[in-house]
Amino acid sequence: MANADNRYRADLRDVRFVLFEQFRLGEILGQGSFSGWGEEEVLATLKETARLAAEVTGPLNGSGDREGCRLENGQVHVPKGYKEAWDQVHASGLKMVSVDPEFGGGGAPSAVRVAVEEMLTGSNTAFNMYPSLSFGAGELIERCGTPEQKKKFVENIFGGKWGGTMCLTEPQAGSDVGAARTRARKNPDGTYSIQGTKIFISAGDSDMVENIVHLVLARVEGAAPGTKGLSLFAVPKFRVNADGTAGARNDVTVGSIEHKMGINGSATCVLNFGENDGCVGELVGGVENAGMSQMFLMMNGARIAVGIQGLGLASTAYLNALNYARERKQGASITHWKDPTAPRVTILEHGDIRRMLLEMKSKVEGIRALAVKLATHVDRAALHAGKDDEKHAYHHGQVELLTPILKAYSSDQAFRICELAIQTYGGAGYLKDHPVEQYCRDSKIFSIYEGTNHIQAMDLVGRKLGQHGGAHTQQFLGDVASFVEAHQAHPVYGAEVKALGSAQESVVNAVMKLMEYSQAGQLAKVPLVANRFLEMMAELTLAWLLLDQALIGEAAMAKLSAEHPDRSFYAGKRYAAQFFARNILPGVGAKAAVLLAGDDSPYEIPDAAFATV
Amino acid sequence: MANADNRYRADLRDVRFVLFEQFRLGEILGQGSFSGWGEEEVLATLKETARLAAEVTGPLNGSGDREGCRLENGQVHVPKGYKEAWDQVHASGLKMVSVDPEFGGGGAPSAVRVAVEEMLTGSNTAFNMYPSLSFGAGELIERCGTPEQKKKFVENIFGGKWGGTMCLTEPQAGSDVGAARTRARKNPDGTYSIQGTKIFISAGDSDMVENIVHLVLARVEGAAPGTKGLSLFAVPKFRVNADGTAGARNDVTVGSIEHKMGINGSATCVLNFGENDGCVGELVGGVENAGMSQMFLMMNGARIAVGIQGLGLASTAYLNALNYARERKQGASITHWKDPTAPRVTILEHGDIRRMLLEMKSKVEGIRALAVKLATHVDRAALHAGKDDEKHAYHHGQVELLTPILKAYSSDQAFRICELAIQTYGGAGYLKDHPVEQYCRDSKIFSIYEGTNHIQAMDLVGRKLGQHGGAHTQQFLGDVASFVEAHQAHPVYGAEVKALGSAQESVVNAVMKLMEYSQAGQLAKVPLVANRFLEMMAELTLAWLLLDQALIGEAAMAKLSAEHPDRSFYAGKRYAAQFFARNILPGVGAKAAVLLAGDDSPYEIPDAAFATV
Repeated sequence: MANADNRYRADLRDVRFVLFEQFRLGEILGQGSFSGWGEEEVLATLKETARLAAEVTGPLNGSGDREGCRLENGQVHVPKGYKEAWDQVHASGLKMVSVDPEFGGGGAPSAVRVAVEEMLTGSNTAFNMYPSLSFGAGELIERCGTPEQKKKFVENIFGGKWGGTMCLTEPQAGSDVGAARTRARKNPDGTYSIQGTKIFISAGDSDMVENIVHLVLARVEGAAPGTKGLSLFAVPKFRVNADGTAGARNDVTVGSIEHKMGINGSATCVLNFGENDGCVGELVGGVENAGMSQMFLMMNGARIAVGIQGLGLASTAYLNALNYARERKQGASITHWKDPTAPRVTILEHGDIRRMLLEMKSKVEGIRALAVKLATHVDRAALHAGKDDEKHAYHHGQVELLTPILKAYSSDQAFRICELAIQTYGGAGYLKDHPVEQYCRDSKIFSIYEGTNHIQAMDLVGRKLGQHGGAHTQQFLGDVASFVEAHQAHPVYGAEVKALGSAQESVVNAVMKLMEYSQAGQLAKVPLVANRFLEMMAELTLAWLLLDQALIGEAAMAKLSAEHPDRSFYAGKRYAAQFFARNILPGVGAKAAVLLAGDDSPYEIPDAAFATV
Repeated sequence: MANADNRYRADLRDVRFVLFEQFRLGEILGQGSFSGWGEEEVLATLKETARLAAEVTGPLNGSGDREGCRLENGQVHVPKGYKEAWDQVHASGLKMVSVDPEFGGGGAPSAVRVAVEEMLTGSNTAFNMYPSLSFGAGELIERCGTPEQKKKFVENIFGGKWGGTMCLTEPQAGSDVGAARTRARKNPDGTYSIQGTKIFISAGDSDMVENIVHLVLARVEGAAPGTKGLSLFAVPKFRVNADGTAGARNDVTVGSIEHKMGINGSATCVLNFGENDGCVGELVGGVENAGMSQMFLMMNGARIAVGIQGLGLASTAYLNALNYARERKQGASITHWKDPTAPRVTILEHGDIRRMLLEMKSKVEGIRALAVKLATHVDRAALHAGKDDEKHAYHHGQVELLTPILKAYSSDQAFRICELAIQTYGGAGYLKDHPVEQYCRDSKIFSIYEGTNHIQAMDLVGRKLGQHGGAHTQQFLGDVASFVEAHQAHPVYGAEVKALGSAQESVVNAVMKLMEYSQAGQLAKVPLVANRFLEMMAELTLAWLLLDQALIGEAAMAKLSAEHPDRSFYAGKRYAAQFFARNILPGVGAKAAVLLAGDDSPYEIPDAAFATV
């Protein structure tokens, strides 16, 4: 079933463009905590990641999907080849490329991490869940743990000897995390006895590591209800001996693994803690009732990571579909469609195929720009921290605002882009011989986990819009307005830039309407329109960033010889921007009109009227 | 993994409403060829189909997906239970409910067949492929075969003793059917030797039947290139003895079966004909070069059938998601969201869940109305044939116009509705414990087979719009305009009806633009906008039909007591219509604006600029 065509494709040229030409990574390389990084180091890192993705993780994507995970005698066995890939990924240090060197990381800008993660996850979503969850757990302990906990857990996790997980969800507590019932009882020795069941635990067990440190949200006896009474515990699969080695089995068992639509190589576990009353955990950081705020430290990063998961699959889906369209011959050109003897052409010549490809291209490249823009704000916020409060606040605010947008839009669009990729292949796209049907299945979970996309939309509208008196939103909309002001008379892109301005005004009107709801206490109206508003914000952002890319491309092209290979690349920027501005951007105004009309029919319909069966 | 929740759900109340209250099936029952059918017979048929779907085919849906098909020693083995279901489906006569009684069918109106097929395919898409393809082949022979061919093949096929397939696609000839290379050489005895490879043959082999009659498009030596030189051959798996029984093996072999994203219970085969130069076929109807026109006799029906496949899965996806939302508790009401001790509510209380459900409901019920409307035109065309040419032409014209719309919109939306169903379930929707992820995977093929949705859109724009001097289109748009005229001052629905009128005008403008392209010889511009135009037509139609339903519902409700159980049903019609008119219908105008702007960027982008990797 393996196919020469079934391989991971990375667009390193576009990655370089977004990092260096659009977001001017060069300006911050060598600065502050990024002092060890120059352009050469970044390019070498990208190249090494691309190699790893193409040679190590990518080739296991299809086989891991087909093989899936097995639970035998309480132990999860991962697909063939995962252990070797695990070792190589850890040896490469790439998962830690932007972790503080103080914690053993590479200290690169977050923008570099976006590019690295796009390739690691894009080449094998299911596999990459294991090191991602593990590093996430390690980072959390590094940031919140006691010195003893750091010593005991973090080096083993970062080195790949041990794994880590995040255990939030319970059968009755999914989106409603505060409904968690897992209990913790303090023991005389300061440890806690943990009892409860966690579900949907990604990378919840594996045979790649000697031990696994589960980070478990639980409620200490007598603590408050809701999220405020949750504490975070480190619960190792094997108790840790005094010498730091893994010892006797702790009372944590894998109840079952889920059978899913996709990411089959990732073991999604039901974990039972303390069924025999022998589950011992340690309170992370030694502070009770701080579990949610500790988890929240990781939340932005986790949500950005899901946005990058969407980007990774969307990009390789697009590039595979493009490659197929370049090779597959079918039908004659439309200019000869009546002549059965006309030469057969590649499907890339057909208008509808080109339309689908250009839609995919513009969305993929727009989402990549959004992800890197977000990471650039992370990096600049870090550089300005403690030095320039205003700039720090600006950059930090954009991170807050853009995070739910990236997570939700990228994950929704990844699924749509995979759908278009399948359609581009035609019947072949429905077969497991080609990678796109798996990409489609794998991508569907992105809109659900790490906070469903509706939770992202509610976070955007209910929290981020009004944050700091609305400053982040005003700054964002001001940035777009400045761009419009500067370029609306552009000879090539004037019309598109004006359309951007009109979409910006639509967003402003929608924001005012949402503020009205909030001031009038009409909170219930928000969930009906929040997803639509998030989409408007995302499409405004993408149109802006793509037009910005096109302008950069024009300037760059003007300096190139007629034969320079980069001319094609920059030309692509023109058409991606024009396509998006002309075909997708008009939807922002249309959505605003619907939002402003304030339809309440979903609340007005009586429950029984949905269906009488 | 089986779950009490994992079951087929049919909405018989809505089916009855659409058949009898909206499309007044009663008016044609008892008339002409429907003389044997009264309301009672229809209701009994629907009830029996629902029973079969719930008890026989539905329970095999999940197990068939997991088990899939096996190819062993050249023989395809179907999943457990399929053979028993096959026998019961054939015994029920339901697959032939609207086939002419002369051919052994039930003679019911096509509108009844839509309802029956919705349940048969909705309960088990993969299984239903076998009897559907088989009956399609049987009908084709019945309509086009010689008397001897009918005698030899049809009774065995209709009785379920033998199966049948349609073999069009070849490795280099998918959408481009005319590129078929399978060859036929006439033998001295009047039979033909067939040689070639066909791929993507649904239900291409099975162990449920004694023999399979493959209907194969092939080119007789010396025939013209393209579709005009194709002839249709009946090629049995086992040659037929003089006494009509299945005899020696013919030279047809299953090369492989495909591994697919979904419909895993349906064997998609590569069939090799004449590898050992021993494949004998008979020319269907004894006429060479008539293959495409013979196939085209079945084409409308096959495309309508795919539309119904979409409807079937979309409807059960919606009803399962609704049921889950009614039972699943998560979170507190938004009016108490800050209080962690507030009672947990079912997710049906959450605004975003209601929004998703109402979107699914309005689309499902709108597509059902479209499918039944189309079938009603088939029925009325049949009744008026040879009696009232004008009415016959009108009804026949609407069938022509609406067929590509139903096929493409229903299949695209089925996938989207399944996506919403998964999102409604949250993480649970990604698991195989619940049926929606399978519905999603199964539904993806609908947009591809029986002519991709782009081929449907090109058929609509390039063929149907201008058919009979544009008469079908004018009549359709006139019907919508009459409805707007009649109801735009309605006290409840006036605003929505006016919005319908404005959408109708947008469609008119788009039609004029498309005519302009055609008159100016700008044919290449059509593929860029055809899909968008089809969506506009579909959304206009759904909004119209849903508003019509709402008006019927208001009138019916006015006659009911306050406690009548049907009140909820009719109330549902109000909100489905309002939701669709306020949230989806505005998209028609927005799409028209984009279409009229005539963006050419997909053609302008140089091939090399799509990506430089």
